Amino acid sequence: MKTLLIGATGTLGTAVHKELSARGHDVIAVGRSAGDLRCDISDPAQTAELYRRVGRVDAVVSAAGDVPYKPLPEMTPEDYRAAFTGKVLAQIELVRQGLAHIAERGSFTLVTGILAREPIPTGSAASMANGALEAFVRAAAIEIAPRRINAVSPNVFTESLADYGSYFPGMGSVGLDEVTQAYVRSVEGGQTGQVYAL
Amino acid sequence: MKTLLIGATGTLGTAVHKELSARGHDVIAVGRSAGDLRCDISDPAQTAELYRRVGRVDAVVSAAGDVPYKPLPEMTPEDYRAAFTGKVLAQIELVRQGLAHIAERGSFTLVTGILAREPIPTGSAASMANGALEAFVRAAAIEIAPRRINAVSPNVFTESLADYGSYFPGMGSVGLDEVTQAYVRSVEGGQTGQVYAL
Repeated sequence: MKTLLIGATGTLGTAVHKELSARGHDVIAVGRSAGDLRCDISDPAQTAELYRRVGRVDAVVSAAGDVPYKPLPEMTPEDYRAAFTGKVLAQIELVRQGLAHIAERGSFTLVTGILAREPIPTGSAASMANGALEAFVRAAAIEIAPRRINAVSPNVFTESLADYGSYFPGMGSVGLDEVTQAYVRSVEGGQTGQVYAL
Repeated sequence: MKTLLIGATGTLGTAVHKELSARGHDVIAVGRSAGDLRCDISDPAQTAELYRRVGRVDAVVSAAGDVPYKPLPEMTPEDYRAAFTGKVLAQIELVRQGLAHIAERGSFTLVTGILAREPIPTGSAASMANGALEAFVRAAAIEIAPRRINAVSPNVFTESLADYGSYFPGMGSVGLDEVTQAYVRSVEGGQTGQVYAL
């Protein structure tokens, strides 16, 4: 299975890359500044160029998306626009443009996050972005069949608690091994329109 | 109660205006091309000017938000950006800028819609926008207290079935009287962070 992995060099992307490779996928690793190919998916023109280069793929897997974190009164319109462009539209364009390149029963797997359902202070742009994508995934699923689309919506990673745990008091965590299995479920299974809340 | 109503001249806004006025609110009706004041909230600068003119308010109520409807493969990045600017950021800016003008226990009531949870073909931008706002409302609530924020997320209006019913097969409808009561619940009650799914 030829699998395009965006955000391949982050904490999540590295784990997904390892698991999909171990399962026999031919993974094309894409990053902004490292990987087999370079692409900043917040620029739809770069996404178009990426698809021109890779041709037909069986699965598109995203572990990418940046949003600003600030107290709400300090947010600006540009901060919300950046969250939209960097996480929402970036992944929507992976899907929309990818329709011309994905296999007939191929799949898109996007990444959202727990802030869609459980807010934290400073996280209003992240919540907005994640909520946008989860609703988009439900909507896109009914339009792109038999091609499929799902979202992985994880808690803070157990492996990242030392760095970020203080932002998620009492909220637990999820191990990267469990998160990577949600990607496997989306890519190799038959489900569509699902949000895997982990 | 001094209540700023955005989108006052549409089907929903007209009903909300009538109900809030009947309940004794001093309603300032705002529309893009009609009303007591004119404002296009998709332009944050116009929202700033609106707040400068109205001064302190007890409640901000929105019945405004435009999104494009198209089959997903015909959508463009500009369509999704338009949905973000016209419905998501427009209402976020009502809240963010409104923090400096709203009473200490004042409220913001935004409008989303059933497509956040129940998709229809051509509705991917609407679903995206509604999902974004509903997650934003949950996130903003924990940061702006004791000021409050809720969203009204209605089905197609019973009164609009003749025009739009064919897009919502088997999905029922909700009467404007029930929708206006959700606005009343948000504005006059004590709840916050709620999405009233009608």
